[in-house]
Amino acid sequence: KINGERLWDSLMEMAQIGPGIAGGNNRQTLTDADAEGRALFRRWCQEAGCTLGVDEMGTMFAMRPGTDPDALPVYVGSHLDTQPTGGKYDGVLGVLGGLEIIRTLNDLGIRTKHPIVVTNWTNEEGTRFAPAMLASGVFAGVLERDWAYDRRDARGLRFGDELERIGWKGDEPVGARKMHAFFELHIEQGPILEAEGKEIGVVTHGQGLRWIECTVTGKGQHTGSTPMYLRRNAGRGMARVIELVHEIAIARQPNAVGAVGHVDVYPNSRNIIPEKVVFTVDFRSHILDTLEGMVAEFLARAPGLCADIGVKFSSDLVGFFDPPAFDPVLVGRVRDAAERLGYSHMDIVSGAGHDACWINRVAPTTMVMCPCVDGLSHNEAEEITPDWAEKGANVLFHAVVETAEI
Amino acid sequence: KINGERLWDSLMEMAQIGPGIAGGNNRQTLTDADAEGRALFRRWCQEAGCTLGVDEMGTMFAMRPGTDPDALPVYVGSHLDTQPTGGKYDGVLGVLGGLEIIRTLNDLGIRTKHPIVVTNWTNEEGTRFAPAMLASGVFAGVLERDWAYDRRDARGLRFGDELERIGWKGDEPVGARKMHAFFELHIEQGPILEAEGKEIGVVTHGQGLRWIECTVTGKGQHTGSTPMYLRRNAGRGMARVIELVHEIAIARQPNAVGAVGHVDVYPNSRNIIPEKVVFTVDFRSHILDTLEGMVAEFLARAPGLCADIGVKFSSDLVGFFDPPAFDPVLVGRVRDAAERLGYSHMDIVSGAGHDACWINRVAPTTMVMCPCVDGLSHNEAEEITPDWAEKGANVLFHAVVETAEI
Ligand SMILES: NC(=O)NCCC(=O)O
Ligand SMILES: NC(=O)NCCC(=O)O
Repeated sequence: KINGERLWDSLMEMAQIGPGIAGGNNRQTLTDADAEGRALFRRWCQEAGCTLGVDEMGTMFAMRPGTDPDALPVYVGSHLDTQPTGGKYDGVLGVLGGLEIIRTLNDLGIRTKHPIVVTNWTNEEGTRFAPAMLASGVFAGVLERDWAYDRRDARGLRFGDELERIGWKGDEPVGARKMHAFFELHIEQGPILEAEGKEIGVVTHGQGLRWIECTVTGKGQHTGSTPMYLRRNAGRGMARVIELVHEIAIARQPNAVGAVGHVDVYPNSRNIIPEKVVFTVDFRSHILDTLEGMVAEFLARAPGLCADIGVKFSSDLVGFFDPPAFDPVLVGRVRDAAERLGYSHMDIVSGAGHDACWINRVAPTTMVMCPCVDGLSHNEAEEITPDWAEKGANVLFHAVVETAEI
Repeated sequence: KINGERLWDSLMEMAQIGPGIAGGNNRQTLTDADAEGRALFRRWCQEAGCTLGVDEMGTMFAMRPGTDPDALPVYVGSHLDTQPTGGKYDGVLGVLGGLEIIRTLNDLGIRTKHPIVVTNWTNEEGTRFAPAMLASGVFAGVLERDWAYDRRDARGLRFGDELERIGWKGDEPVGARKMHAFFELHIEQGPILEAEGKEIGVVTHGQGLRWIECTVTGKGQHTGSTPMYLRRNAGRGMARVIELVHEIAIARQPNAVGAVGHVDVYPNSRNIIPEKVVFTVDFRSHILDTLEGMVAEFLARAPGLCADIGVKFSSDLVGFFDPPAFDPVLVGRVRDAAERLGYSHMDIVSGAGHDACWINRVAPTTMVMCPCVDGLSHNEAEEITPDWAEKGANVLFHAVVETAEI
């Protein structure tokens, strides 16, 4: 068994870096705080005897050698970046849970046949630079490295420039590593495990996602002196499109979700009719047909809703992945480990996207989930118990070590 | 007659200060650009032989003395501040039109009985600090000076601090001056004069306004892993409220307008359900009952639209004025001047708010309007012709000089 207290202490120490304003974290990707979090993780990995590799996307790989020089490593990890109003566990638990496996193996003096590599994937959150899971997407060969470098944040800064600026652009070609397997421990970020009273979620599948960046263009006019019939109000177009997003998602309950989390209004003045609004629609479903049906309905109806009021709708797909099905053998090992350890568990579909969703395309992959209080995540008030963290890491430990072979 | 070429040259020179990104201006109140514009105007006033007073709200008063030491001055002016995407004429024409009257009187060697004072009111636009017409509202005794100092911009900066920072906090008590009359020349900012083919608008009334700052509060949750039925999406509340604003305004055509120009979404991340949205509703009508009816209907219905989807609605009145009726004697002088000069004219209701709307409460007041291309304003593409500017300033000249008495 892993050392739950040590794991918790490390979680709390990492949470000191990039504090939020309400007890959580704002450690967005490629910020100074991200660099500081990476440096702390590097120090811990070195203290645990690992050697560190960094690839051209800034992803960190900390290796504990195996006994068989020909055996591919077992990878385990997640991400250290957070939302602007992020919790202390989303991503971090998976990285530090991986580190805790290595520390425990060191404590016990156990050597594995396969090396074990703990990974911190760059820009999983996608909040500063869309899309989410950017580095793992490049690693899996789905996205291009140079295209990723060209992603820009809201201030217009380039991903590639920011990666260099914080000093974490490595020289390892992205995706060159071959994996025996990949495991990711993560908090559920939804309410199901807690509601069902289960300690472990055995993740069999995940939802697919489409992020559609929409631009509604009207005319910047005076809110007082422009007659209603002459207006071309882009903000009103946005309002109609937001309602459409909900209508589309609600019609497909319980197999789909939809929301708009990001909205920028231009020029954003109380007495100027919005000239332009840019916002991102987030549609998800674990059924590919449903997901594609939502997008098709949306793209068929949104332009008309806007044209009806004299504004123009255009859109761009800025994030996508299809619903993944995880490796049945590894899924079985996670389920067996939970069973063996005497933890309550259930099979679950991941509602959120994870680096595991991309890595699943290039290596046998699965996930372990633990509950979070009220299903709340992407919120500084995100909370888990030390007991949940410890049990999740124990299941991860058993499944990883079984796969890495003693 | 005034010198149209000189007036146009001054408009173009002022437009060099605080350039926008599309040919217009971004010279928002109490910015460095505002200070620079004020300094240029001060120099011009001094060159025209005026003495300058500045009050505690930063409003500038440039006086050309009269012949009768007991005669109250005739005031004429508008504002030099602009929207973030502002035009070159909104406000500026009224200030520089006033200066052109003084320059013309100097050219002609004419002295008036009443002094003439050209005024630049601080923060007319209300885009950086709500409400609009802030300094004239304090001058008219409707708003408190210290309350005005405490207004904050989107970055949290205080009006009073910014006024000191740019070096334009004067020592004259606000509202101490008594006025014989106040005149304001302004572009229409709407399409009526151009559509009707009239060169001059004789402004008899104005619209009243209510700015309602709304806050919709939900819960910041994960857009992927939170089931639809558990969401409290503040952005969806905003969308419903924006549609309500339009429904309310459209039901009262053609006597009302309504829009939402300003929207801030928190935390504004693609994969976080909006926790909170703050936005400002702008309702206007020239009929007080209609205006009050809109607000009453809005406040009665908006909370329920939000409660229906589990989010909370609250609101705050951050700007207001009732529909003004301008002084019939001064209105008659403007109409007579247009007639005498042989310009086509019509009576008109001002769609926008102006400093004249507040000053109307403490002194006989009226306005002169000239057309603008396509009725477009609060847009960098705002345009007028030199001929329209010259004719507007000529009408202003005649009405002001008649009131100031030769
Ligand atoms: N786990 C997680 O929150 N990932 C961010 C990508 C997503 O929005 O699902
Ligand atoms: N004239 C003008 O645009 N004033 C700003 C206040 C308003 O929104 O009417």
